[in-house]
Amino acid sequence: MTAYAIPPIDPLRISFSAAHGTMTPEGPLLTRRMSDVAGLFADEDARRRAADGDDPVVYTVAASPVPEAAGELPQSLTTILPGAVSGEFHMTKGHMHPDPQGEIYLGLSGRGGVLMYDGTRTEWIEMEPGMIGYIPPGWAHRSVNVGDEPYRFLAVYPGSAGHDYGWVVEHGMGRRVYRDGASYTLAPFSAAG
Amino acid sequence: MTAYAIPPIDPLRISFSAAHGTMTPEGPLLTRRMSDVAGLFADEDARRRAADGDDPVVYTVAASPVPEAAGELPQSLTTILPGAVSGEFHMTKGHMHPDPQGEIYLGLSGRGGVLMYDGTRTEWIEMEPGMIGYIPPGWAHRSVNVGDEPYRFLAVYPGSAGHDYGWVVEHGMGRRVYRDGASYTLAPFSAAG
Repeated sequence: MTAYAIPPIDPLRISFSAAHGTMTPEGPLLTRRMSDVAGLFADEDARRRAADGDDPVVYTVAASPVPEAAGELPQSLTTILPGAVSGEFHMTKGHMHPDPQGEIYLGLSGRGGVLMYDGTRTEWIEMEPGMIGYIPPGWAHRSVNVGDEPYRFLAVYPGSAGHDYGWVVEHGMGRRVYRDGASYTLAPFSAAG
Repeated sequence: MTAYAIPPIDPLRISFSAAHGTMTPEGPLLTRRMSDVAGLFADEDARRRAADGDDPVVYTVAASPVPEAAGELPQSLTTILPGAVSGEFHMTKGHMHPDPQGEIYLGLSGRGGVLMYDGTRTEWIEMEPGMIGYIPPGWAHRSVNVGDEPYRFLAVYPGSAGHDYGWVVEHGMGRRVYRDGASYTLAPFSAAG
């Protein structure tokens, strides 16, 4: 795994590929397979069967070398592979920032959206290539691929924001996103079981 | 002038046009004409004549409604109009972040670059559409249009970073960027006079 650069960082040219989901120069690459996302989908039995079978990749996150450190502004390119578990679309685990700071997503390719939850209200922003989704401080966020090709977006976030995955496990995300014919529907959140 | 939103901000869809230099929804629009940039170019007499004449726009900065406030991650779209003053290409005033935090530029259209200066070292990053220029904490930054069409880029920066223009007036930027045939050259910095 390629590593983050150590601060202080020098000015850097960074390119990224919406076709391949890569950033150049490369930082760490995170790969989440079905076996890495226990409890993520409502139908946990179906998730386990998929993990015990092909164990497909659900999503990858390719970071640039700019580190998740205070004062830096790191970037990453997420690819969510198309697919569903009992009709529930592939998605990221989702997280809250322990240090409440905003984040932006820039749509690159495919069809997807951002589900946001502040503990009371749920918001869904459908993303398009070339569009920004703004995640304000205090909103947990999860991305979902609602199409049949890889959904890709670039994230830019303060290096000190952090990732609290446990908050989402405890509070949920307000809604789940299911296939509905050629489109999708948002259903009330239900715990995995 | 359209205003920034007041925190707390709700999740927001933001689109931007690389062809028109606009962001939707709109935040404040900053316009810097030749009369607004006294002391910016090495040839101050030529700058003053241009200001007393047509007073052309040198650059505009169109912000989204996400405010420059702690915890937010605002964005803006800068358009530097093509042109030069005694051969020195149009550029932004440039600034240092009083609160040392990183920033990213995403190239959108035209030919330009980012000049960065940490008080000792100068770095020049030539930008291309779809490419990120990373400005680390502690580096003053100025953008330059080295082409003959508008040069546009999207900036994403922490809302608490701030803008210290006086630092650049006091320390300069290490280099000046001049027309050189169909290309450009970086010359040692000289004070305006």
